[in-house]
Amino acid sequence: MPALDVAGEFETIERLLKPLAHPEWARGLTDDVAVLPSRPGHDLILTKDAMVEGVHFLPDDPLDTVAKKLLRVNLSDLAAKGAEPFGYLLSCFWSERCGWPEREAFAAGLAEDQARFGVHLLGGDTVKTPGPASFSLTALGWTPAGRAVSRAGAQPGDLVFVTGAIGDGLLGLRAARGELTLEPERLDALTAHYRTPTPRLDFAEVVRDFASASVDVSDGLFADLTHVARTSGVGVVLNLNVLPLSTAAQAWFADRVDPQLSLEDLASGGDDYEIAFTAHPRHEENLRHEAERRLLRLTRIGEVVVGDGLTVTYDGRSVVPARQGWTHD
Amino acid sequence: MPALDVAGEFETIERLLKPLAHPEWARGLTDDVAVLPSRPGHDLILTKDAMVEGVHFLPDDPLDTVAKKLLRVNLSDLAAKGAEPFGYLLSCFWSERCGWPEREAFAAGLAEDQARFGVHLLGGDTVKTPGPASFSLTALGWTPAGRAVSRAGAQPGDLVFVTGAIGDGLLGLRAARGELTLEPERLDALTAHYRTPTPRLDFAEVVRDFASASVDVSDGLFADLTHVARTSGVGVVLNLNVLPLSTAAQAWFADRVDPQLSLEDLASGGDDYEIAFTAHPRHEENLRHEAERRLLRLTRIGEVVVGDGLTVTYDGRSVVPARQGWTHD
Repeated sequence: MPALDVAGEFETIERLLKPLAHPEWARGLTDDVAVLPSRPGHDLILTKDAMVEGVHFLPDDPLDTVAKKLLRVNLSDLAAKGAEPFGYLLSCFWSERCGWPEREAFAAGLAEDQARFGVHLLGGDTVKTPGPASFSLTALGWTPAGRAVSRAGAQPGDLVFVTGAIGDGLLGLRAARGELTLEPERLDALTAHYRTPTPRLDFAEVVRDFASASVDVSDGLFADLTHVARTSGVGVVLNLNVLPLSTAAQAWFADRVDPQLSLEDLASGGDDYEIAFTAHPRHEENLRHEAERRLLRLTRIGEVVVGDGLTVTYDGRSVVPARQGWTHD
Repeated sequence: MPALDVAGEFETIERLLKPLAHPEWARGLTDDVAVLPSRPGHDLILTKDAMVEGVHFLPDDPLDTVAKKLLRVNLSDLAAKGAEPFGYLLSCFWSERCGWPEREAFAAGLAEDQARFGVHLLGGDTVKTPGPASFSLTALGWTPAGRAVSRAGAQPGDLVFVTGAIGDGLLGLRAARGELTLEPERLDALTAHYRTPTPRLDFAEVVRDFASASVDVSDGLFADLTHVARTSGVGVVLNLNVLPLSTAAQAWFADRVDPQLSLEDLASGGDDYEIAFTAHPRHEENLRHEAERRLLRLTRIGEVVVGDGLTVTYDGRSVVPARQGWTHD
């Protein structure tokens, strides 16, 4: 259909996206398709997540961090399945605010993260939209055949673990919106987590080796553990007292008048991009060892039981959280 | 991030999208990822195209046909490479107008075309947007290893062919907008082509066996043949006099006062989703035979020469078209 800006797409692809292209499989972005040779003995793992300005990122978020977040939230899905990423396809819906400098920033963000995470652009397209800037990314990774971790494998008696800290997604959003009062370095740390979360790719192989079920914490720990419980047909008991908090979140938490409600907020906020997983107790020592080797915090937050859905405990009592978690619709 | 409609995404996935999921590889859409076993001896072909309401489809286009068009324009890319599609991932950016009946219609359109083209939903996500309804689809197909046809293989001496008819994309858009005066059945045929073009998947294996270079006609025949010429490092000569027109386009053409300009319009309009390809003259008889077997029109529209870019001839003279083609940015 007729376009308003004939030069835009070609220029964007030629000057900004081609330098990001996979050296072999993207065909220089000149051929509408990527061509991926089969990798015998491996499964291809695919995920696709979208982001909309004003819904999944803020209108004043810099576009280099928007690009990074887009890539990272997808890589986080792969990490939770135990997959090693290698590439992605990208659709950009550029809004009015996406002029050439903004597109350059977006591509620069991708370039940095491609180098950091070892992935390349495989294809996609760019279009203009009269609406908010929006992006969709399809990320691809490998696992050895049959080894992708699902949500469905949790067994009664398994333990529940989570990497890193929970709650920086929610507090980061509030920090980025200017809604928090904390020391500047705490606010900066939270804003940085919100804009550029760290997918736990260095822990993916450990999850693959030891986890019975796994999920990345994107909808909120409550919601994501509920997914695991339902898909596995088990109950999951989460001990809110041991929820791992970052230094910044601890500073925020110290001033709360209702600690239980505050922990519930953090556990339902989402956007954490940690890996929550279940594993047989015999693997606990190995898991702790592998986490220590990677300087990665690992917290045992609960257990899997015969039952149905998520049970939250606080101070040894079962509690009913006011909220179960956000969704992204 | 907080959402306005908590039920929307889960309901949409549970009730509308799960019935479309691939029986093995989509993991019931419950696991954030698709898991695709390797297929030794084959290459995986991937393409990703986006559509925006008001840019790539009309605000009053029914959502079942929007879904079909979204799938078909991606399948058309695969067909032109000689690939056999099997699945797709989907991002839906639902606008205000996308209530439950519209989402049902969208899913119904996908269901019909899944059955028609032998593909299944592998994954993706749905989000809400305050902007226009937008969609991004990643389509996947197989070719035997090393057999995907590129844009880069055209050789001087090759002939240029195109399937079907050229120009119904442009005239279809005008018909859908109510800008054409023709008999009702002609207008219906053109509108149907605009809304639900036919990807030439039944010709994909023929293209794979005989074509030296191939492209689907989405940007317009002029622009797409120019891509082939540039990528292959050759010249392409297109004879405008033999441009294949549909019955409806012929009816429109009969009333034109400037036939050359009218043919240029049709050849630069895009959205045709035919396959334009080059092949060695020794394959012409086989190509015609295979097209006839499939009741598919196949027209020899030009030749490949030593040179650079596209040359258009009309009545035996070289002409300079007023327009070279649309882009989708």
